[in-house]
Amino acid sequence: MRQSQLLSKTRKEAPKDEVSRNAELLIRAGFIHKEMAGVYSFLPLGLRVLNKVNGVIREEMNAIGGQEILLAALQDRELWEKTGRWDDAVVDNWFKTKLKSGAELGLGFTHEEPLTALMKNHIRSFRDLPLYPYQIQTKFRNETRAKSGIMRGREFLMKDLYSFSRDEKEHSLFYEKAKLAYMNVFDKVGIGETTYITSASGGTFSKYSDEFQTITEAGEDTIYVCEGCKIAINDEVLESKKACGNCQSSDLKKKKSVEVGNIFNLGVRFSEALNLAYLDEEGKEKFVVMGSYGLGPTRLIGTIAEVLSDKEGLVWPKRVAPFDIHLVEIGGESGEVRKVSERIYSALNSRGLEVLFDDRDLRAGEKFKDSDLIGIPLRLIISKKTLDEGLFEIKERSGGKVSKVKEGGLRDFADDYLK
Amino acid sequence: MRQSQLLSKTRKEAPKDEVSRNAELLIRAGFIHKEMAGVYSFLPLGLRVLNKVNGVIREEMNAIGGQEILLAALQDRELWEKTGRWDDAVVDNWFKTKLKSGAELGLGFTHEEPLTALMKNHIRSFRDLPLYPYQIQTKFRNETRAKSGIMRGREFLMKDLYSFSRDEKEHSLFYEKAKLAYMNVFDKVGIGETTYITSASGGTFSKYSDEFQTITEAGEDTIYVCEGCKIAINDEVLESKKACGNCQSSDLKKKKSVEVGNIFNLGVRFSEALNLAYLDEEGKEKFVVMGSYGLGPTRLIGTIAEVLSDKEGLVWPKRVAPFDIHLVEIGGESGEVRKVSERIYSALNSRGLEVLFDDRDLRAGEKFKDSDLIGIPLRLIISKKTLDEGLFEIKERSGGKVSKVKEGGLRDFADDYLK
Repeated sequence: MRQSQLLSKTRKEAPKDEVSRNAELLIRAGFIHKEMAGVYSFLPLGLRVLNKVNGVIREEMNAIGGQEILLAALQDRELWEKTGRWDDAVVDNWFKTKLKSGAELGLGFTHEEPLTALMKNHIRSFRDLPLYPYQIQTKFRNETRAKSGIMRGREFLMKDLYSFSRDEKEHSLFYEKAKLAYMNVFDKVGIGETTYITSASGGTFSKYSDEFQTITEAGEDTIYVCEGCKIAINDEVLESKKACGNCQSSDLKKKKSVEVGNIFNLGVRFSEALNLAYLDEEGKEKFVVMGSYGLGPTRLIGTIAEVLSDKEGLVWPKRVAPFDIHLVEIGGESGEVRKVSERIYSALNSRGLEVLFDDRDLRAGEKFKDSDLIGIPLRLIISKKTLDEGLFEIKERSGGKVSKVKEGGLRDFADDYLK
Repeated sequence: MRQSQLLSKTRKEAPKDEVSRNAELLIRAGFIHKEMAGVYSFLPLGLRVLNKVNGVIREEMNAIGGQEILLAALQDRELWEKTGRWDDAVVDNWFKTKLKSGAELGLGFTHEEPLTALMKNHIRSFRDLPLYPYQIQTKFRNETRAKSGIMRGREFLMKDLYSFSRDEKEHSLFYEKAKLAYMNVFDKVGIGETTYITSASGGTFSKYSDEFQTITEAGEDTIYVCEGCKIAINDEVLESKKACGNCQSSDLKKKKSVEVGNIFNLGVRFSEALNLAYLDEEGKEKFVVMGSYGLGPTRLIGTIAEVLSDKEGLVWPKRVAPFDIHLVEIGGESGEVRKVSERIYSALNSRGLEVLFDDRDLRAGEKFKDSDLIGIPLRLIISKKTLDEGLFEIKERSGGKVSKVKEGGLRDFADDYLK
């Protein structure tokens, strides 16, 4: 895409009320727009990243048998009363609204209730199980404070998968598979190395659960890390186990972190309340054993922005970058530079590479500054100087390594790097 | 995908309170689930159709210069007060909710206000225009009545594009292009022949507008069609022009129809209220000229279900069908049938064809009934009989034509048909 036609412009300053680094960078670089505290819109660059993150998540969820669905945001009060989660005294972050008839509706902050009710139409016998529906859908949570940018939204995207299994054994097998799938997601989006699985208390409805915590100063959580074993313990459960579960060392390092995913054993909490049962091989009626598996694509993007950025701007990992290559033309008014830029832009595009072509009439310094801020993995410079040399300069955004490459070798260089 | 593993089952009956044919069929076939009146969730089959419809829409919007974004649902009261659209006396279908602070928020029923405000960060000079952002996003409308299934939802997906132009002339050029793009969408999703462009009154904020109306008994609108010219006049404007604008004939046929799209000239109504201005070539400040272009993917699916179904069930057009081929195995317990079915399933998949493989242990009659209800374009039957003949039966869902094809010719047959 030609940058001269891109909807967004970079900005020197984020809005004054923006206190988080992730949102500040993403706003300045033109990825998102702040509507109000905890509510952000996605501009073309941001939506490209979001679609790629969602693509990675779908890949991993489909690989473990997930089937994608899309549930409604508006929630029927009656269902939630059955599980005891309608009352604001029980769930303190509901957004509620009203039909013209005066009937109260909720805006879904999670979807155990409606999905469990829905599945009653599709689960009758043991032959119908297991099932793993998931969605990537907008959640609404009436947070008292929303100061962490897109890491904690009042409106945000969530991938929520729910498992419906015949028994605890079938459930546990899937639960462990889901853990691995989650770690694959974090690896692919570039935060695998700084993300830990921690046991958490599981809240009010689960005997046990696991959290995925990424270390960042911007996080709202605290974990205790055993650096030898790459294992962490959650603040909440530190009371009961003060040592690494693996090596028993009590030399744990305290770190700030953000919860990028969580998975819960739900047992029959919801299937019992909403009467989701099946007939087993012997014709006996049993409640379905459930689990829920949450992961927020928008929070992931905020986390990537916190963890991988530098003082110049964003640094996107290859898999989720808005574009592969930032083609920066310097001095395009000289006919030759423009001609070569257009030729290379078209050649890279036809190879299937995604190129942002900075064809704007600006000084080199401004273009480089914008390019650093936007953070595309490779920057390819085309100028009078590179033409004279017969070599093009490619700079890696992460690490800053510079290579000089002949025109004929550009596509292979990019393909190799992006692999 | 194997049907034995598909999350949804077909149902003999839709919920008793479902009065629309589109929702009744889509629920019975396992495409959607009714949460409450006007609120539906999408199951895997329905989501596949939705993604394909969205794909067609994106193709056409990108082709006319659209840039995809994703705006928030939660709306800031202050912005809407500036344009006079916050008051429930002015806009009667708001859903409103509250932050913990007590501040009122709205749920977006459209997005002129927030997008106009957002664009102030990205439009300064004539060089930044024109721009055509669009989104495919969830809208909320507090409808008094919601009895048309997914043709009129309280929560539904909408593609809304907004044009930002320098002047009326630039605006008009795009407006006409958008009309053609809309007709392309309707053609590609199979309702082009029954869809008419009608001039409408434009409501409260537009001097003129155009509607796209598809003829169906399930529609809530009325249009007057000139059959010779394929032109229609909207009920609302019939008073002023009682004849076809083309041939001047007053022999117009009254038809029921559903509005599948609408496009509006907004002029400077919103840019003036929210102060979205740019500097022209002479450094003079001017308000941006706007248009808005709505099209509902979920309503489109409902319309397709109404217009193209028959008494057996749904009939999907090729471009938006959940799968290309329904491979129906009859008598799979005979080892040979299963073996051949698996081989053909795998061969068609590897060719890039999307196959729903009915590998369930059910009688032929039940399988055919389900297959008719689900409505995939081609049904391929594999049975003892077809193996004995060395010919496979392929039945077209639309029209019912049956062909006999050798195994080696199946992929080409499907490719040709689906082209």
